[in-house]
Amino acid sequence: MDAPLRLAIVGGGGRGKSFLIPMDALRDKVTPVAVFDPSEIVLEWWKEHRPDVRRFGRYEDLLEHSNADAVLITSPLIHHAPQAVQALNAGKHVLSEVVAGVTIEQCWELVEAVERTKLVYMLAENYCYMRSNMMVLNMVQQGVFGELTYAEGAYIHDCRALMLNSDGTLTWRGALRRMFKGNIYPTHSIGPVAQWFSINRPDGDRFVRTTTFVTKTAALPLYVKERFGAEHPGAKPEFWVNGDSVTTIIETEKGALIVLRVDANSARPHNMTHYVLQGTTAAYISARHGDEENLIWIKGRTPGYSWESLMNYADEYEHPKWRKLGELAKGTGHGGGDLLVLNDFADAVLQGTPPPIDVYDAVTWSSLVPLSIESVNRGNIPVDVPNFKRL
Amino acid sequence: MDAPLRLAIVGGGGRGKSFLIPMDALRDKVTPVAVFDPSEIVLEWWKEHRPDVRRFGRYEDLLEHSNADAVLITSPLIHHAPQAVQALNAGKHVLSEVVAGVTIEQCWELVEAVERTKLVYMLAENYCYMRSNMMVLNMVQQGVFGELTYAEGAYIHDCRALMLNSDGTLTWRGALRRMFKGNIYPTHSIGPVAQWFSINRPDGDRFVRTTTFVTKTAALPLYVKERFGAEHPGAKPEFWVNGDSVTTIIETEKGALIVLRVDANSARPHNMTHYVLQGTTAAYISARHGDEENLIWIKGRTPGYSWESLMNYADEYEHPKWRKLGELAKGTGHGGGDLLVLNDFADAVLQGTPPPIDVYDAVTWSSLVPLSIESVNRGNIPVDVPNFKRL
Repeated sequence: MDAPLRLAIVGGGGRGKSFLIPMDALRDKVTPVAVFDPSEIVLEWWKEHRPDVRRFGRYEDLLEHSNADAVLITSPLIHHAPQAVQALNAGKHVLSEVVAGVTIEQCWELVEAVERTKLVYMLAENYCYMRSNMMVLNMVQQGVFGELTYAEGAYIHDCRALMLNSDGTLTWRGALRRMFKGNIYPTHSIGPVAQWFSINRPDGDRFVRTTTFVTKTAALPLYVKERFGAEHPGAKPEFWVNGDSVTTIIETEKGALIVLRVDANSARPHNMTHYVLQGTTAAYISARHGDEENLIWIKGRTPGYSWESLMNYADEYEHPKWRKLGELAKGTGHGGGDLLVLNDFADAVLQGTPPPIDVYDAVTWSSLVPLSIESVNRGNIPVDVPNFKRL
Repeated sequence: MDAPLRLAIVGGGGRGKSFLIPMDALRDKVTPVAVFDPSEIVLEWWKEHRPDVRRFGRYEDLLEHSNADAVLITSPLIHHAPQAVQALNAGKHVLSEVVAGVTIEQCWELVEAVERTKLVYMLAENYCYMRSNMMVLNMVQQGVFGELTYAEGAYIHDCRALMLNSDGTLTWRGALRRMFKGNIYPTHSIGPVAQWFSINRPDGDRFVRTTTFVTKTAALPLYVKERFGAEHPGAKPEFWVNGDSVTTIIETEKGALIVLRVDANSARPHNMTHYVLQGTTAAYISARHGDEENLIWIKGRTPGYSWESLMNYADEYEHPKWRKLGELAKGTGHGGGDLLVLNDFADAVLQGTPPPIDVYDAVTWSSLVPLSIESVNRGNIPVDVPNFKRL
């Protein structure tokens, strides 16, 4: 058994803390040794609850003085790319929360830094690790779906309460909605789908163009009005730049279409894991809510032209990672995804296995943020997706 | 009681015959008096089964010599617009099957003919009359949904068996798939949604731009190969012009987005009635298949942030037309839609009530056919939707 990977947590707030649960479950492989946060209040929490983890109020100090082998970046998303590049330049492997970067320049800088330093970079896109998504991935890889033609991914999650602080000022999430009109949170929707299509893989497919459309905003100003009164500037639609719901189309090199929806504002029960996959010999549609079944139809297997539960095929098509770690993963966050992400990252660093979500995946998926903004700015026209892997 | 409306059926094949059931249920209001079909075999059926209906092998003869007040056009869709204009010019009211027309010129000709003749024109879009769709319409009109921001409509129906005759030649449906790349069957998806958005109505909304994307074709050539062998030219993808699945985006004047999917080729259980509607105070999502519930969430009514069955609100929000005619309509075709269409058309002619799906609705919805083809031809860019009502 190797010594466990020494991990520094970059961003010690809620998301950083939540990783302590899967880290504890994987304590033979991963151990937290340091934390950076600019907030003294946050660092006080760590001092009290995890005095074994060394605290840093400056990121540069952590990179210079901690004994971490790698950083786990859980800061607000606009910081991810610069912090990742800094860490790579300091000789640290990087596991980054989503999204990897928010501009095309940041994406290329990440690619360049990873290629130059030859360190491990992995995106912590835990939705790729959900049991149902991995089961579908296993089916696709075993040929169950035949040739893929169409897919959907949607993240519908009323996050309006996270846009404003209790005093009516904007959180960083709210601030983002005043800055950009586009798809600023695409990876939960596109990550699993991209893996199904073997994007950027040998004999796989590639994103070639993407187009984005945005609704007006109506749900968010209504929420602000009800919570803070009509005199709050956010009670007016024109205060916000982004709309309630965003639809992004991706065209692939092999002629498939992927349709994404990201909606963080509309008033409705959430569905953060809507997926559809259509192949020539099978079709998949996820549940509309948590009490429903994910449905599959497989040519020559499913009786007639009807749906059946995906779980009917769990014995046959459970993904090997879920067979091995499923019991351990359950209850450790994001449907087990956080633990499986950490496990793959640790294996990549300690054993040299390729990270399943590498820097090319990370920047290809994340490039939908700036590309969606560009598409909208140019009148909702298709824009080319950079070929980050230069395939 | 007025004398019943005398109706001529234009296209005596399967679709024309299927209207005999709702006509019989509405026999006090509508009576079939004539039929046109170019096929002698078809006319033989009518001679044997409905000798009371006068038969015509030439459409011009029917228009000149039958005593019909109106025509019901159930021919292949490329004939609808020319036959409708001919009928209007001959002084006959028109009830047309979908789509109304397949070119922008045909759409304008229809508008011009209706405005000039002042006769009744109605589109027989029976999906608008489905019980659930009308209940949602009633809710929208009573303000349950608040401000509308987003909707989906999808028609997913594996029609591959209808594309080719048993000798391997193409049917008119198959021929269409060699002619056009675009959304050639949009009205089942857009019709109910357009009514929810009060498109072309005072204080309503308007379609301003539309953009279409098409997948490759893979399911259709696979089907041809399996049915007719690899040597059939249709077993090669390049034989076909259209793709398996088509996605159309519509932007409205008030800033809402409508996302349509039409897929007549993919191998999967059908879902011809997928609808989503998002307002600021309610949300709706239809069932994934026939054994599932349509789901709704209403702010201040539904407990918590969860879905409940649309049918929980049937007592309160059943559409008046369904309250009145629901029992009669059930089992008469297309979820009762055919009967309710006929009833509204008869009322429009006999009593002068405005047809609920008038020529402006018909051509606005149908214009998505040529506009989708234009969008695809121009590189999937947004194209303007004509303002047929000149609002």
